[in-house]
Amino acid sequence: MFIAIEGADGTGKTTQVERLCRWLEEKGHKVVRCRDPGGTALGEAVRDILLHRQTVPLDTRAEALLYMASRAQLVAEVIRPAVEAGCIVVSDRFVLSNIAYQGYGFGLSVETLRQIGDFATAGVQPDVTIVLDMPVAQALQRIQRTPDRLESRGVEYLERVRDGFLQEATRYADRVIVVRADRHPDEVEASIRNIVEPFLGTG
Amino acid sequence: MFIAIEGADGTGKTTQVERLCRWLEEKGHKVVRCRDPGGTALGEAVRDILLHRQTVPLDTRAEALLYMASRAQLVAEVIRPAVEAGCIVVSDRFVLSNIAYQGYGFGLSVETLRQIGDFATAGVQPDVTIVLDMPVAQALQRIQRTPDRLESRGVEYLERVRDGFLQEATRYADRVIVVRADRHPDEVEASIRNIVEPFLGTG
Repeated sequence: MFIAIEGADGTGKTTQVERLCRWLEEKGHKVVRCRDPGGTALGEAVRDILLHRQTVPLDTRAEALLYMASRAQLVAEVIRPAVEAGCIVVSDRFVLSNIAYQGYGFGLSVETLRQIGDFATAGVQPDVTIVLDMPVAQALQRIQRTPDRLESRGVEYLERVRDGFLQEATRYADRVIVVRADRHPDEVEASIRNIVEPFLGTG
Repeated sequence: MFIAIEGADGTGKTTQVERLCRWLEEKGHKVVRCRDPGGTALGEAVRDILLHRQTVPLDTRAEALLYMASRAQLVAEVIRPAVEAGCIVVSDRFVLSNIAYQGYGFGLSVETLRQIGDFATAGVQPDVTIVLDMPVAQALQRIQRTPDRLESRGVEYLERVRDGFLQEATRYADRVIVVRADRHPDEVEASIRNIVEPFLGTG
């Protein structure tokens, strides 16, 4: 089984990914946790270019393709083997982030990004994607550090990104589910457990 | 105007790109020479991962997407501005290399690679692409160094790649032209000049 946790920075993804993994492990599942971009030697190299090397000029299309390259490697090297071995994979971000940030946020074609995503992942899709959602202003307040390349792009951009996550959840309601993240972490965690529970033990 | 020089390693691309650029400059044109992958800070970082870091495991899809990312940056940062400024851009490789190597060579979808290429380049296409062609055995003989990641994949693979270049030239005969490269460099150069000449002074 493959679960993706999505949402803007500041919505508590890292905390919830951690809690979800711990809970799944306590229930006796083998869990593989990863983050996208990242998770492989290539992914970490790409992550470094994408998020921190402000000195490398980066066109939006190049940026989207770097994310996709990193993801292709993550799927081939980590996610596909783990799922095939019967593990539960929990990924911090996946294709939907590209669709929200570079598609809805920046105006690149959402359909083309989806196609490139299908190519990159060779068709490996999360069984369920959970979108952590809260107002942009609130998420920004929770980020206690210098904005990175993405975050520095302004509030209007982040509003379009948030809207993108929500639109995609409406469009793919059978496999993308929104969780209100402007609540106590315990409540968010409980909501996520309720979503994941029905998928467990089905194979 | 935008010219791409394509073909396998060992076919004399670098020499011919150099000679073509010199000739164009002597005729009074402003020439911008580039290589793909490469030509930008991002491109050189990607080139390093792709060709030399044998320690970084690289899935074929990830590899194709890295080339595309590098190309997107090259187009945005170098090729498009140069063409718009009236320069002649001569690129050592472009989208066709991905189509030949990862498509025909490795069996990834040629049509999908073409679509991703269109996305990466935002529609910027060479006015003419020149494919330097010679038998695989002969090209390999001319490579006087340790095979890199691509070259080490074997002769059958390189035969499929060569076949890919030739098939694409047949399919897009109006803008992809094959030049026999198993001749004296002066003869190859003359053939390339004959192909490029009609394009000059038209825009």
